[in-house]
Amino acid sequence: MTLDKNVRVIPDTLPGIKNVRSFQAGATSSLAEMPRTPKRCGKIVSTVREALHRAGIRDGMTLSFHHHLRNGDLVVNMVLDIVAEMGIRDITLAPSALFPVHEALLRHVKNGVIRTIQGSVNGPVGQAASHGEFVAPVVLRSHGGRVRAIQTGDLHVDIAILAAPSADQMGNVSGVIGPSACGSLGYAFTDAQYADTVIAITDNLLPYPVTPFSLLQTEVDWVVPVEKIGVPEKIVSGTLKITQDPMRLLIAEQVARVVEESGLLIDGFSMQAGAGGISLAASACIRESMKKRGVRGSFISGGITGQSVDMLKEGLFRTLLDVQSFDLEAVASLACNPNHVEMSASFYANTAAKGCVVDMLDVAVLGATQVDTDFNVNVNTESDGVLLHGIGGHMDTAAGAKITVIVTPLFRGRMPMVVDQVITRTTPGNTVDVVVTERGIAVNPGRKDLLDNLRGKGLPLMDIHDLKKMAENMTGVPSMPPFGERIIGIVEYRDGSIIDVIRQRV
Amino acid sequence: MTLDKNVRVIPDTLPGIKNVRSFQAGATSSLAEMPRTPKRCGKIVSTVREALHRAGIRDGMTLSFHHHLRNGDLVVNMVLDIVAEMGIRDITLAPSALFPVHEALLRHVKNGVIRTIQGSVNGPVGQAASHGEFVAPVVLRSHGGRVRAIQTGDLHVDIAILAAPSADQMGNVSGVIGPSACGSLGYAFTDAQYADTVIAITDNLLPYPVTPFSLLQTEVDWVVPVEKIGVPEKIVSGTLKITQDPMRLLIAEQVARVVEESGLLIDGFSMQAGAGGISLAASACIRESMKKRGVRGSFISGGITGQSVDMLKEGLFRTLLDVQSFDLEAVASLACNPNHVEMSASFYANTAAKGCVVDMLDVAVLGATQVDTDFNVNVNTESDGVLLHGIGGHMDTAAGAKITVIVTPLFRGRMPMVVDQVITRTTPGNTVDVVVTERGIAVNPGRKDLLDNLRGKGLPLMDIHDLKKMAENMTGVPSMPPFGERIIGIVEYRDGSIIDVIRQRV
Repeated sequence: MTLDKNVRVIPDTLPGIKNVRSFQAGATSSLAEMPRTPKRCGKIVSTVREALHRAGIRDGMTLSFHHHLRNGDLVVNMVLDIVAEMGIRDITLAPSALFPVHEALLRHVKNGVIRTIQGSVNGPVGQAASHGEFVAPVVLRSHGGRVRAIQTGDLHVDIAILAAPSADQMGNVSGVIGPSACGSLGYAFTDAQYADTVIAITDNLLPYPVTPFSLLQTEVDWVVPVEKIGVPEKIVSGTLKITQDPMRLLIAEQVARVVEESGLLIDGFSMQAGAGGISLAASACIRESMKKRGVRGSFISGGITGQSVDMLKEGLFRTLLDVQSFDLEAVASLACNPNHVEMSASFYANTAAKGCVVDMLDVAVLGATQVDTDFNVNVNTESDGVLLHGIGGHMDTAAGAKITVIVTPLFRGRMPMVVDQVITRTTPGNTVDVVVTERGIAVNPGRKDLLDNLRGKGLPLMDIHDLKKMAENMTGVPSMPPFGERIIGIVEYRDGSIIDVIRQRV
Repeated sequence: MTLDKNVRVIPDTLPGIKNVRSFQAGATSSLAEMPRTPKRCGKIVSTVREALHRAGIRDGMTLSFHHHLRNGDLVVNMVLDIVAEMGIRDITLAPSALFPVHEALLRHVKNGVIRTIQGSVNGPVGQAASHGEFVAPVVLRSHGGRVRAIQTGDLHVDIAILAAPSADQMGNVSGVIGPSACGSLGYAFTDAQYADTVIAITDNLLPYPVTPFSLLQTEVDWVVPVEKIGVPEKIVSGTLKITQDPMRLLIAEQVARVVEESGLLIDGFSMQAGAGGISLAASACIRESMKKRGVRGSFISGGITGQSVDMLKEGLFRTLLDVQSFDLEAVASLACNPNHVEMSASFYANTAAKGCVVDMLDVAVLGATQVDTDFNVNVNTESDGVLLHGIGGHMDTAAGAKITVIVTPLFRGRMPMVVDQVITRTTPGNTVDVVVTERGIAVNPGRKDLLDNLRGKGLPLMDIHDLKKMAENMTGVPSMPPFGERIIGIVEYRDGSIIDVIRQRV
C-alpha cells in the first residue's frame, strides 16, 4: 500500500486547532536520530541548596510550608538557614502554622532574610511580631482563607516546600508512612497545586510509586533526600488525655447539654471539636449522649484524634474528614480505614471552592482568648495584647456551622475572658452562637430559634452582658494594654476582607 | 476593657494586601441582621435541563463527558437529547471516548445540534465522520493529549458532565459504589478541575459525605439525580477471557520472550498491557515468567483487569495505577485494596504535568490497525480508510515506555497489517521499538541496544521490510482506499502538534 504523499500534508490552519504546529514535518526515515518526548523520570537533587537554586530563588520571593510536623518540624528552620547562607533576603514566609521550635527563625528576621509572614504566626514568632521586629506587618489568615488567597492569587507562592514523610523519585508524597509519619497532609495540597516550583524534602525515599499518595508527581518539581525532617515524638502525641480539671469538665458537660437540646443531635449529626482539653472533654460527653440516644452521625471534620477514631469504630460517625492527624491512633487509622479520609484545606474550608466541609457542619466547638458582648471572638492576641496564636479553622468553622459554641473559662489568672470589646477581632460575632463558661451560658440574641430550644431545659442561660459583669466582678475591669500606632499584623477574614489590624505593643 | 475605637480602624492601604476591603465596616451591634458567609450546602437540581440552564448553556459551547460507563452509558445520549430539545445548536462534544451505544448521537449531528467532536471518536460515530457528516473536522487526542489540551486551554470546556455512580448533595462522586459502579473515574478529573461549570448526574444519591470520593465537591456545581445512568452488564465485563486462538497465543508468547530477553524483567519491572485478547494473553505469559524468575515488579498502569488484580495479590507487583477498571474484579479491588489506586489521566499521561506514569513504564504492549516500515502505527483508521477507533493511551505509553511492543497478526482477512506507509499516522515510529507478529519479530533499527539483547536468543527476528513483503506475498499489495480532498479528522500528537489528518472516504 503506497500512500499518496499529499494525504499526509498538514495545512497551515485547521478548524478547531488554535495554532497548527506540524509534528516533525514530513520526516519518517531518520528513526535513529529522532528523540522521544522528553521524559521526566528523576527529580532527585542532592541538596536543598541545589533545589532552591533550580527553583530560581531570589530576593523578595514567597516560600510556603505546611505545619503537619508541628513542633517536631526540622524543615522550616533548615530551609531558612540555607536561604540565609545563599545570601537571599526579603523572603515572605507563608507557613500554614508555626510552633515554638520555629523561634530559631527570629535571627533570620533580624538579619533581613525574612521580611514578613503571611499565613499563621504563632508563639515566639508572634511575640517578635508584636514587638515590631518584622519589616512589614504579618498577615494572618485562617486555613480556609490561606488557600483562598493562594487560589485567587492574593498570595502568590514562588516556591512551596513540602516536608514529606515518604516520597518517591517522581515526587509522589505520603504522610502516613515513614519515621516522620504525620498522617494527613491536608494543608499542603493547595501549595503544591499553585506554587511555581514545588520541592519535596524527605527522610524516607521509597521505590516508585509510593502509595497511598497524597501529594502528586504531577505537581512536584524536585525531591531532596535528607537525613531527618522531623522529631517523631514531637510530631504526633501519644493518646491525648481528656482534662481532669473539674471546671473544664463542667464546661464540657454544658456544651454537650447545649448540643443535646439544640435539636441537631439526630441521625446525620456532624461536628468539629479541637484537640484542646475542653474540646476533647466536650467530644467525650457528646459521644456518651450519642450512645444513649442511639444517634448515628455523618462526619467529624478537622483535626482528628484517637477519640474521633474510636467514635468511627463504634459506628457513631460514618466518616472522618481529616485535614490534620493529631495522634498516633489517627495516623494509623488514616492509613488503613477507607472511611477515614484525608481532605485538603480547600475541601475543608475554602470560600473560593464550589463547596466546603465547614458549610455542612452542625456543631463547631471552638476556643477563645477573649469574647466580647457582641460575640466577637479573639483567638490571636492574649489579654496583654501580644500576638501568640494563628487563626486555624476558627473563623471558617464558625461561619459554616449551624451552631458555633465558644468554650472558655470565665477568667484566666486575673483576666476576664468575656469583655466589652475584644482586643483583636478574629471571628465576627454574627457567626458565633453560644458562649459556654463554667458559670453561665450566653446565646447570641440573633439566634432566637436556638434560644427557644434551650430555654426551660435547666441550662444556666444568661445575657452576655451579665456574663461580662460577673467576670469583671471577680477580676476587676482590666486596663487596655498599651499599643503604639504602628500596625504589625493584619487579620484577614476568610473572604479576603480585612477584619482587624494588630498594633505594636509598646 | 474598653477598646480605643481607633485601634480597630482599618487603613485604606496595607502592605502585603492587594485591595484592602474592610470587613463590614464599623458595625458590630446589629447582630441579628448580619448574614453569615453565603453557604453552598445543596447543589441538587431536579432535572438535567435545569442544570444545563443554570450552567448558561448556549449555541457553540463545548460539553465534555467521560467514558467510564463504556457501552452501558446512558448519560451522553440523554444529555444531548435534552440539549436538542432546548433548541441549542453547534455543540462541540468532548468525550474521552465513545461506544456503539452512542450511534444515537448521529441524529444530533445531522440536525445541527452537534457541530464536531474533540477527544475520541469511535465506532459508528467515527464512520459518520469518515463520510463527511460533521460540519467541522473531528479532533482526535490521546488520553494524555486530551488533558494536556484542557489544562493549557487548547480545549476549553464550558460544561463538564460527570456520570456519577454515586454522589452526595455537595457533589462528591465515587465510582466504586452504586448500581452503575465502574471503578476508577480517572478520565474525568481534569474535566472537573478546568470546566467552567461541572454537573454530576447520578442514579445513586447518598448521604453526605460519600466516601471514598474521587471527584470533589470543590469542583462540582450541580448534582442531578436521575433514575438510571447506566446498564450495569455493559459497563464492566465479568472475568475477561484470555484468547484461545493459537495464532494469538503464539504472538503473546513471543511478546513474553522479548520482555524476558530485554533485560528489563528484574525487580522493579513495570508494564502496561490492554484488555484485548493478545495483550491479556501476553500479560499471562509475563506473569508466568515473573513467577519462574522470582521477579517482583513495581506497578501495572492503565486499564486494570482481574488478571492485574491477581498479580497484585500474588505479590508480582506492588501497585496498580488504575485510570480505568475493566471488570468486576478490578472495581472490587479498587474499592478496598490500598495498593490499588485510582489515578487521573493527567497523572497517567499528561505531558503538561510535572511528571506522568507513562514515563516510568518499562514495557507497553499495544495493538495496531496497521504498522509501516518506518514503525509508524495507525490505530485510528482501518485498512479501508474509515475512522473507527480513538487513540486511547497508545501514543502516550509508546512515548514513555522503555520498550514499546506492537502486537498484530501479520494480516487480517485479505489485508496486510505491515505496510509501506500507514494510512493514518497515530503513533510515530521513533517511539515504537518492536513489532511482534505470528511469523516474525521486527526491531526498530534505532534500538541497537535492544537488538543486541534479543539476537541469538532463538527469536524469529526479521527486518521490517521483510515482514512487510511476507505479508504482501500472502495478501497481495493492497490498493489505497479512495479519499477525497476534504479533511474530516485531525490527529493531534500528545504534545499538541498535528501528526496527521484524515480525509473523507469517497
